[in-house]
Amino acid sequence: MILEHLRPMGAPPVDLHIVEGRIARIVPSPRDAPAPVLLPGLVEGHCHLDKTLWGRPWWPNEVGPLLRHRIENEKAVRRSLGMDAAREGRALALGHLAAGTTRLRSHVDIDEESRLTHVEKLLTLREELAGVMEIQLVAFPQSGLLKTPGAEEWVDEALRMGCDVVGGLDPSVIDRDPVRHLDIVFKLAERHGKPVDIHLHEPHELGAFSMELIAERTRAIGAQGRVTISHAFALGDVAPARADALLAMLAEAGVAICTSAPPSRPTPPLRRARELGVTFFAGNDNIRDTWNPYNAPDMLARAAMVGLKYELRRDEEVGWALDTVTASAAKGCGFGAYGLAVGHRADFVVVEAESVAEAVVTRKPPKLVVAQGREVARDGVVEASLRR
Amino acid sequence: MILEHLRPMGAPPVDLHIVEGRIARIVPSPRDAPAPVLLPGLVEGHCHLDKTLWGRPWWPNEVGPLLRHRIENEKAVRRSLGMDAAREGRALALGHLAAGTTRLRSHVDIDEESRLTHVEKLLTLREELAGVMEIQLVAFPQSGLLKTPGAEEWVDEALRMGCDVVGGLDPSVIDRDPVRHLDIVFKLAERHGKPVDIHLHEPHELGAFSMELIAERTRAIGAQGRVTISHAFALGDVAPARADALLAMLAEAGVAICTSAPPSRPTPPLRRARELGVTFFAGNDNIRDTWNPYNAPDMLARAAMVGLKYELRRDEEVGWALDTVTASAAKGCGFGAYGLAVGHRADFVVVEAESVAEAVVTRKPPKLVVAQGREVARDGVVEASLRR
Repeated sequence: MILEHLRPMGAPPVDLHIVEGRIARIVPSPRDAPAPVLLPGLVEGHCHLDKTLWGRPWWPNEVGPLLRHRIENEKAVRRSLGMDAAREGRALALGHLAAGTTRLRSHVDIDEESRLTHVEKLLTLREELAGVMEIQLVAFPQSGLLKTPGAEEWVDEALRMGCDVVGGLDPSVIDRDPVRHLDIVFKLAERHGKPVDIHLHEPHELGAFSMELIAERTRAIGAQGRVTISHAFALGDVAPARADALLAMLAEAGVAICTSAPPSRPTPPLRRARELGVTFFAGNDNIRDTWNPYNAPDMLARAAMVGLKYELRRDEEVGWALDTVTASAAKGCGFGAYGLAVGHRADFVVVEAESVAEAVVTRKPPKLVVAQGREVARDGVVEASLRR
Repeated sequence: MILEHLRPMGAPPVDLHIVEGRIARIVPSPRDAPAPVLLPGLVEGHCHLDKTLWGRPWWPNEVGPLLRHRIENEKAVRRSLGMDAAREGRALALGHLAAGTTRLRSHVDIDEESRLTHVEKLLTLREELAGVMEIQLVAFPQSGLLKTPGAEEWVDEALRMGCDVVGGLDPSVIDRDPVRHLDIVFKLAERHGKPVDIHLHEPHELGAFSMELIAERTRAIGAQGRVTISHAFALGDVAPARADALLAMLAEAGVAICTSAPPSRPTPPLRRARELGVTFFAGNDNIRDTWNPYNAPDMLARAAMVGLKYELRRDEEVGWALDTVTASAAKGCGFGAYGLAVGHRADFVVVEAESVAEAVVTRKPPKLVVAQGREVARDGVVEASLRR
């Protein structure tokens, strides 16, 4: 397979020779004509395949205002709609593929209701889609590791079954014991030799303290480069000098940050994170589910949100926004053989645009998506054999 | 003309009889079948028709970091690209029409470079599009009223020529004299009997002080219900109790707030503004111009951004987001005969959705747009006679 006359990251046009799903050669294009922009396959750094209502009929949200209402409501809706993590997750994953995402990290609920059913279903989905999409599953104790009897054992079992990453969340706010919660997370990471991704919504100094505990434990087990803090809102709450100190600590401990760049609240400072050497990437988080009707499986749209959130306006800066859903996301999640280079996986997005910056802000679906050397979508529609 | 089987704001289906561009009758639909959602024509509360690069080839942004760089750059780019307020404004206005916007308020630069040229061109565009879109033009002294010799006279002349609204901006930060700046703005408003719309980026207590001056002057000339503060960032900066006091003052003075709901900084509190009776509406502000590559002429997307900014998640709350680009925007701008009622203008947007909330979050262009009783766009494409 040869992909002809494309501009990798907006550079002069090339032809790409693909052999067995990998890039075998990249040679200058002989043609002299306008060419679309070629991007590497996009990376979704944080989503919840088992929570989404994407692709389903509209579900009217009439949930009460408290967190407790939302959690109880989610469980009730799952039952009443007969939600199935494999079916909903498939709809979202294919939506992502249509928009150019070929690698994806999803958290998977493990709680007293779901136990290991979501894990089982999404492990099956992961295998089913393995030829077109690389999916990582995070064993995510949504209702706490300590508060939910059995949760530690289920997470342990999920990792044995094949989940890729140890999850955790808000160790003080949810489990009321940051040390015990994090000690379990890192014990499981060490036992299974797997990376860590912790939801950290905790604000201000409470969240900062959790970050310190996470950095200490990352160093202690030698997991540098394999730990992510998702959201990390505290870094947007504390004073800039304190945020700088925390970022330096995270850089030294090799802890990455993943954000959805929500418009509604302060978020970790992207520019300082880049300057201080912290891997900083993006994910959608909730996409049209019982928590939130917004967002879409579209990483270029997420990159544009990152750009708006951090006022990345110059073309070069818009490239930083794209980086949060491409190279830095692959690095943060540990997806290998990533990027437009010989020997790497032939995962591409072709966008009708004059530049990388235009590719980020355009609202058109990609002209073509290639996954592991195979055409999988055109103009926002996945190929027929993948639909069903 | 009869529009059949549509669900106004998601209510049970009706047929609408249109006579001479107005709604003559609304009767229950006899059919029993799924029907799309009918919304009133959308309202763009704040844009800059003369600044946009929408519809042009990509312009690479390499502007320096300072405000001064951006202002100087904009002028240089206008010259080098041969920008024309009528041509660019037309592209943006038709983009808006394709996405369902039938009423629009645009600020028009009046400065030492443009003087009255943008005003002349956009007044011509306003007339040209009058059959499909109601455009308000704000005489906007972008470089200051006091600092720019001649600006007051040009704004005065622009209002005589037909501009609809007196503009102003940051009276302390730009003109360095809030009282003199605002006295001129309100003197012009009184002289011409026209409403006021002031860009107020000033933060914290400096912006709060400007709001107090604006409220005083609004009452003094009896302009309640005819004054808008655009951005009003200070209301997002001060403590909640202070913001409440300012909002109560604005409600009493009949001063409205317009926001673009930018993800990058705090904004006026929507929920409290609603509770305290302040008219609160939305606009895009910059759309793909030399300041900023983001945004699009799409008021449903802007409503979704309002929803994300203010965490409007329940269907009822998503309706509040839609309100900022429909009824409240029409009220804030003073667009008359607005809404889905007999006698009002036949401006409609038909969206394939099950509910108003889905209409806001869907990313599909409207199925049909009707302006003054005339079909003007289908599936995001304006009719041929309007393109050229």
